[in-house]
Amino acid sequence: MSFEEDTAVRWDDPVWRADLNPRWNVGNNPNGGYLLAVAVRAMLADAGREDPLSVTAHYLSPPVGGDVEIRTEVFKSGKTLANVSASVVQAGRERVRVVGVFGDLSDRRGPTRISARPPDIPPPDECASLLDLTRQAGRAVPEVMNRFDLRLPPDSPWGRPGEGDPFEITGWIRFNDGTQPSALSSVAFADAFPPTLLGALAAGWVPTIELTVHVRARPAPGWLLGTFKTRVLVDGLMEEDGELWDSDGRPVALSRQLAMVLGS
Amino acid sequence: MSFEEDTAVRWDDPVWRADLNPRWNVGNNPNGGYLLAVAVRAMLADAGREDPLSVTAHYLSPPVGGDVEIRTEVFKSGKTLANVSASVVQAGRERVRVVGVFGDLSDRRGPTRISARPPDIPPPDECASLLDLTRQAGRAVPEVMNRFDLRLPPDSPWGRPGEGDPFEITGWIRFNDGTQPSALSSVAFADAFPPTLLGALAAGWVPTIELTVHVRARPAPGWLLGTFKTRVLVDGLMEEDGELWDSDGRPVALSRQLAMVLGS
Repeated sequence: MSFEEDTAVRWDDPVWRADLNPRWNVGNNPNGGYLLAVAVRAMLADAGREDPLSVTAHYLSPPVGGDVEIRTEVFKSGKTLANVSASVVQAGRERVRVVGVFGDLSDRRGPTRISARPPDIPPPDECASLLDLTRQAGRAVPEVMNRFDLRLPPDSPWGRPGEGDPFEITGWIRFNDGTQPSALSSVAFADAFPPTLLGALAAGWVPTIELTVHVRARPAPGWLLGTFKTRVLVDGLMEEDGELWDSDGRPVALSRQLAMVLGS
Repeated sequence: MSFEEDTAVRWDDPVWRADLNPRWNVGNNPNGGYLLAVAVRAMLADAGREDPLSVTAHYLSPPVGGDVEIRTEVFKSGKTLANVSASVVQAGRERVRVVGVFGDLSDRRGPTRISARPPDIPPPDECASLLDLTRQAGRAVPEVMNRFDLRLPPDSPWGRPGEGDPFEITGWIRFNDGTQPSALSSVAFADAFPPTLLGALAAGWVPTIELTVHVRARPAPGWLLGTFKTRVLVDGLMEEDGELWDSDGRPVALSRQLAMVLGS
């Protein structure tokens, strides 16, 4: 079983269907990035395009593992870009609404200028496994965490930022079954890190309200380097701004989610 | 005539209608932030909520001034939040698709922690008017630019960033008719600055593909301080990441758009 198989969709006229695998669960509910990737598979198929360029998910009501239907609408199909909407429905109830624009990242022409720089952390071998850290701390390991090999630097300020620092988590990530990253899976990687403020505040739960991912490039094989920051938490509403860099040092994706801190 | 009047919508069962005022045009087409604000007015009314928390617009085909219909769907209405989709249609063709989540920013409880800091530029009186700068440079003034009083610092690196610097524009902004900023108009302010890379590259046109704005607070009266950066331009695809701060120094909105550089 791999990311590819677990996100498969099949056409069952007039909808797409998928079987959400509980291997991607946090508690009883599928991880939001996995859910988004499943929807994006159906959207890409309908769009007849290779790559997601920007996708926005609104999370409405968490589904459980098992069958979902995905109702799609191509609302624009142009020469370069196609725009698609999708509703992920389970038990007659809409769970996620997605809007996305799709194209072909291998066929683009235009200027390149990158002033952003990848975060500077030690190589993966000198970092600590999040799984090991979580087990050592005696904390429960969400099932989805077993799908990823996620490494944090030994001096990671995660969970204990200094005064005036953003809440931040930075680390290496890859699938733990050897599956290589792709433009599609970058939308899942954008929601695979623990919440930036987990451990920093007595937050019981930080559900994602909305997640937008821009994909700029198909990643090279190997590790992705991810960094996620929260700079503006106001009355429990916060962003998580993410960047994903590939093993060639190229920026692959930018993400931003709106999340809400609920009491513990 | 004011922002309030120019964004008014009226119910004409089963759709909303608005009259796009060409005072907000860039060339023959309404500015994207203005268009978004018109759609958001209809969405707020349908949601029965006070404030936009996150709105995402996909720009499909530019309309012209005049009548548009706005077809809305409330796809979730919960205790705290409501999610709404809207299609802005003109001459039978969809022009903009918007998805948003709405709530009440005055009624929120939860932690606040802000590590972001407003940009440090001279006060508005010591800055230069963008209108004056544009006229002095002998460049055409887009009609929408007359709706705003936008001031840039005298040493603004806009249009001529150094090696390794992001493309960036920072300045003060307010409506030029004395209308005070609001949560609604913050979505228009998020698209009111000139493109970050205007003047820096020989870009003919930088159309917005997708724009997402998070609103965190209702702004205090007075100036807004806005800063917009582009750090990852790859093969003509770029983000513009924006922040808007109010006159009390509080962060009001975060924005990100995906734009595409087209040849000149």
